[in-house]
Amino acid sequence: MKYLHTMVRVSDLEVSLDFYSNKLGLVELRRHENETGRYTLVFLAAPGDESAQVELTWNWDPEDYGTARNFGHLAYQVDDIYAACERLRDGGVVINRPPRDGRMAFVRSPDLIAIELLQKGEALPPREPWASMPNTGEW
Amino acid sequence: MKYLHTMVRVSDLEVSLDFYSNKLGLVELRRHENETGRYTLVFLAAPGDESAQVELTWNWDPEDYGTARNFGHLAYQVDDIYAACERLRDGGVVINRPPRDGRMAFVRSPDLIAIELLQKGEALPPREPWASMPNTGEW
Repeated sequence: MKYLHTMVRVSDLEVSLDFYSNKLGLVELRRHENETGRYTLVFLAAPGDESAQVELTWNWDPEDYGTARNFGHLAYQVDDIYAACERLRDGGVVINRPPRDGRMAFVRSPDLIAIELLQKGEALPPREPWASMPNTGEW
Repeated sequence: MKYLHTMVRVSDLEVSLDFYSNKLGLVELRRHENETGRYTLVFLAAPGDESAQVELTWNWDPEDYGTARNFGHLAYQVDDIYAACERLRDGGVVINRPPRDGRMAFVRSPDLIAIELLQKGEALPPREPWASMPNTGEW
């Protein structure tokens, strides 16, 4: 038995790929378009960790997907949590829970999927502007 | 960068552990109880695939978590999809999408998290009662 992927639905594939690839740092592994079913599937993973994937399902016909609390978040370990948050923030992503402790941060995808970032190994020393940045919104 | 886990909230830890462990076949790796925060975290994974985990968050104070469509499902590869579905069904779990094709099935957790099961390798030959079993509900 083996974990394969977590699937999330996205309302705008280009906006979501910009978030998951350019800003979060995942890489696209494969893509499947289905004209009849009118959907596109895109599988991504962290570089070097291709066996644990996230699947984006983009239904071509718009739908309000909503949010709920039974699903919590996706968590990724990162090599440098400050660099990861800087890239996200520079891309216009709100850092909902800044890494004040040099260890943990939360952001949300364009479709409000919470993403947890955890520093690999020991927490980094506190550093501005993160150390004094308050929380924003919920995640 | 590395995938760590997907977190889902559960409203009844014992019922959820019965589902994820006894019926789905994941194993508990570690547990963290927090008296002050009034929550318990339980990390599970498929046997032999401990690096890709699911985190159950059980808040001791009840809350209606609801469901939404932005989160899709968790997917696991299984060695024998008929055996996996039989164990789930014998445990009282509805097989929402039976493995009619010997390849794919869907069930839902007690908190309505959709779980996809995918046969490892080639699809198995069609077999009753699965081959003629209709879909039930949604997932």
